[in-house]
Amino acid sequence: MSEGFLGYKGEALRVLRKVGAEIGDVVRIVKDGETYEGILIPRSEFGDEKHIVIKLKSGYNVGVLIDPTTQIEKVGAGAKPTFMPPPLPEKRPDLPRVSIISTGGTIASRVDYRTGGVRSALSASDLYSVVPELSGVAVVDAHVLFSLYSENIRAEHWSELAKTIAKHIDDGAAGVVVAHGTDTMGYTAAALSFALQSLPTPVVLVGSQRSSDRPSSDAAMNLLGAVRAASKAPFAEVVLAMHESISDTSVVFHRGTKVRKLHTSRRDTFQSVNATPLAKIDGEKITMLTEEYRKRDSTRKLVLKPDFDEKVAFIKFHPGFDPKVIDWYVDEGYRGIILEGTGLGHVSKYSFPAIQKAVRNNVIVAMASQCIWGRVNMNVYDTGRDLLAMGVIPLKDMLSETALVKLMWITGSLTKEPNEVRRLMLTNFAGEISPRSSHT
Amino acid sequence: MSEGFLGYKGEALRVLRKVGAEIGDVVRIVKDGETYEGILIPRSEFGDEKHIVIKLKSGYNVGVLIDPTTQIEKVGAGAKPTFMPPPLPEKRPDLPRVSIISTGGTIASRVDYRTGGVRSALSASDLYSVVPELSGVAVVDAHVLFSLYSENIRAEHWSELAKTIAKHIDDGAAGVVVAHGTDTMGYTAAALSFALQSLPTPVVLVGSQRSSDRPSSDAAMNLLGAVRAASKAPFAEVVLAMHESISDTSVVFHRGTKVRKLHTSRRDTFQSVNATPLAKIDGEKITMLTEEYRKRDSTRKLVLKPDFDEKVAFIKFHPGFDPKVIDWYVDEGYRGIILEGTGLGHVSKYSFPAIQKAVRNNVIVAMASQCIWGRVNMNVYDTGRDLLAMGVIPLKDMLSETALVKLMWITGSLTKEPNEVRRLMLTNFAGEISPRSSHT
Repeated sequence: MSEGFLGYKGEALRVLRKVGAEIGDVVRIVKDGETYEGILIPRSEFGDEKHIVIKLKSGYNVGVLIDPTTQIEKVGAGAKPTFMPPPLPEKRPDLPRVSIISTGGTIASRVDYRTGGVRSALSASDLYSVVPELSGVAVVDAHVLFSLYSENIRAEHWSELAKTIAKHIDDGAAGVVVAHGTDTMGYTAAALSFALQSLPTPVVLVGSQRSSDRPSSDAAMNLLGAVRAASKAPFAEVVLAMHESISDTSVVFHRGTKVRKLHTSRRDTFQSVNATPLAKIDGEKITMLTEEYRKRDSTRKLVLKPDFDEKVAFIKFHPGFDPKVIDWYVDEGYRGIILEGTGLGHVSKYSFPAIQKAVRNNVIVAMASQCIWGRVNMNVYDTGRDLLAMGVIPLKDMLSETALVKLMWITGSLTKEPNEVRRLMLTNFAGEISPRSSHT
Repeated sequence: MSEGFLGYKGEALRVLRKVGAEIGDVVRIVKDGETYEGILIPRSEFGDEKHIVIKLKSGYNVGVLIDPTTQIEKVGAGAKPTFMPPPLPEKRPDLPRVSIISTGGTIASRVDYRTGGVRSALSASDLYSVVPELSGVAVVDAHVLFSLYSENIRAEHWSELAKTIAKHIDDGAAGVVVAHGTDTMGYTAAALSFALQSLPTPVVLVGSQRSSDRPSSDAAMNLLGAVRAASKAPFAEVVLAMHESISDTSVVFHRGTKVRKLHTSRRDTFQSVNATPLAKIDGEKITMLTEEYRKRDSTRKLVLKPDFDEKVAFIKFHPGFDPKVIDWYVDEGYRGIILEGTGLGHVSKYSFPAIQKAVRNNVIVAMASQCIWGRVNMNVYDTGRDLLAMGVIPLKDMLSETALVKLMWITGSLTKEPNEVRRLMLTNFAGEISPRSSHT
C-alpha cells in the first residue's frame, strides 16, 4: 500500500480517506444509478480534485465524478494473480540462443492487480511462466533495456537499441526479438532496418494489443512466433511480428520499412503497405511470402550505422495549410522536411515560395503521399512538375513515416552534404522502395 | 500556335527554334538509344534551360535532357480529337433538373491535344457529348465556378461553393453535383457536410482518376452515377461518388465526413473509414447500404453556415517531434490544433508542457489517431489520461482530416468561445462520429 492515495487531492482524497480505500483496493461506486466496481488506480498529476479513477474488470479505466450524490465503498483488496512457477531454463545446447530485448509496451507488461497500472514483466522466468512453450524453442536471454510507452521512444533510443542488438548478434545470438509498444513500433522497425545493415540473422520486433493477463491477449502467440522466427527463420532482415488476422491463427512478419499501424485496437493492426509481408508462421511452420529477401547467413558481418538526426520535420499538407511553418523550420536550422502531400504528390501553389526558399537554403524537401497506398508520380500534373523543377524529391512508394526515419538516418549516420543526401534518399537500403508494380 | 515556345529558354529554346517545333507539335527525340515521341508541352516557370518536355501517347509526360548527343525532329502537328455534336438539351419537363457545378480537376477536364495540357470542358453541351446518356436522366444545368487543381482549394473556395450550391437548391434543383479534383475532394466533402445543414436534396461530389479522353477513364461512369443520385436518390446528404472497385461495375456514395483518398492512382481510391458507404448505384439501380440517413424532402429548409476559419493547425506526431512548433502556432494566434497522435491517441511526454501551454492560452487541442481506422480511447493508458486531464479533446472515431475541417467550421461559422467550441467538437453534426461499434 506504499502508493497510498497517489495523485488524489481535494474532495476526492477526502472521500477516499473517509471510506479507507487506498490505491490497489477494490471499490464500488454508485453514481446516477450506475454501479462501477474496480481497482482504485493512481491519479494523474494533471488530474482534477473531483474524480476517482478505477480500473474495471474489462481492463478499461473509468473516472467517476465525486459529488454529494456519489456513493463509494471499499469492497476489498485487489486479488493478485497466481503465476505458474517458471520451468528452469535448462542447459540445452541443442537449442538456438535468442535474445529478447524489452523496450516496454503492452507486450512487455502485465497489469499489476494491486495498482491497476502496467508493470514490466520481462525477466526470462516471467516469460517462461507466461509462454511455457518458449522453453522448447530456444534458450532465451531476456533483457530490459527501457520501460517506455512507445510514444516516448525517439532517436536516442533507436541508437541505443541498435547498438544493443548488434552486441547480441556479435555475441552469437541466433536472432534477436525486440518487445516494443505498438504505437511507434512501425517507426522503430524502419529505424532498425536502416541502422542494422547487412544483417546475418533476423531481428524481430514484437508487440501486442492486449496485455498478457487479459483473456483476449495476443501477447503469447506473437511472442512465440517472434522467438521461433528469430531462432530458425530463413530470412535475415528487420521484421515486425503481429497477428495476421483478428483470429488466433497465424503471426505475420512484415518488412520493417513497409509496415504501418492501421487500427487503434485490432490485433491485426499492422499491415504491409505497397508490399506483401515477408513471411508468416502458422503453428511451427514458417512460410516465406516472397522470394525477394536477404537470407540468413551467420558468417555475414553486420554493419552498424546507429545515428539519427532529429532535425527533420514532418509536414502533412491540407487545405488552409500555412506555408510560414516551412519558413519556421528553415529558420530553426532543420536539415530536411518530409512533405505528406495529396494524391500523386501535390501541395498548393501558394506553398511554392516557401518550398523554394527551403531548397535554396539547402534544406532537403521530399514528397510522400498522404494517400498511404500507391506511388508518388510528380510528372503527371503541372503541380508535380513545378515541385520537381524546384528540387523536391519524389519518394516513389515509400511510406511517409519510413521516409522521415530514413532522412533522419542519412543525415545522422551517412552524410549531411545536400546533393549526397538527395541521391541516398532514392537509394534502396532496406526494401523501402518497391519496384513499380500493378495497382494492387 | 499562340503559345509558341512558352516557358522554354536557353539551350532548349535554341534547339526548338532550330528544328521549328512549337508547343503542340509532335516531336521525336532520340537520346541514349531511347526514342521518345509525343506532343511538345509548355515548360514550367521553374524549369531549367536543358530539358524539353513532351506528353507521350500514354498520357504521361517526360522531360528529356538536351545535350550534344540528343537528336530532335519535328514530326507533325498534334492531331485534334473529334467530339460528337452534342444532342440539343431538350425541354423535358418530365425530367428532374440537376445542377453541375465544376471546380476543376480531372473529371472536369480533357487533355488539349494541341498543348498536352488539361482544359476545362464542362459546358452542358460538352457534358452531353462526353456522356450522352445524361440527356435521358436529367435536364443538366452546368456551371464552371472554379478551374482549380484541388490542392489549391481552400476555405474561401469552400464558402463560395457552399453558397452557390445553396442558391441552386433554393432555385429548385432536384440535386446538385460538384465536379472536383480528387486530391482534396475528401476535405471539401467534409466542409460541405458541415456548411450545408438540414439539406433537402442530395449534394454529390464527383471526381475521376483518369480524364474522359483516356481509354480507362472512370469519368463518364462516375458522372452518370452522380447525376442519377442527384436526380432521384432517396437520401439528402453530402456524398462523394466514385468507383466502388477497380472494375467498371458500380459507383458508391460515401458519406462526406467519413471518406478518405487512400490510393494515389486506383479508381476505387476513396473508401469509407469507420463506416459503411451510404449507398451504391449499379446501372440505374440505387441501393441504400445503411438505414441511418437523412431522407430527401424538398420542403425542408436548407440552413447555410458557410464560413471557415483557417487559423487551425494540423500536427502529426512522430518520434523526434519538436513541441516548439506548438508554441509557434500559439504565438501566431491559432485558435485550434488537431493532433494526429499514435494508437489510441498519444503523444510523447516531452510534448506535454507545450500542449498545456496551448490549452491555457485558450487554443483548442483535439486528438485524432494516425492509425486512421478505429477509435481514439484516452482512458486506457496514463498518457491518454494525462492529456485528457490537460483538456485535450478525444475525437472518438472522427477522421483527422474531417476533424480539421470541423474545427475550421465551428470557429468560422458558429462560435470562437473555447468552452462552446469544445462542446461542439463532440456534437455530431453530419455523421462524423459513429456510435461505438465492433472492431471491423
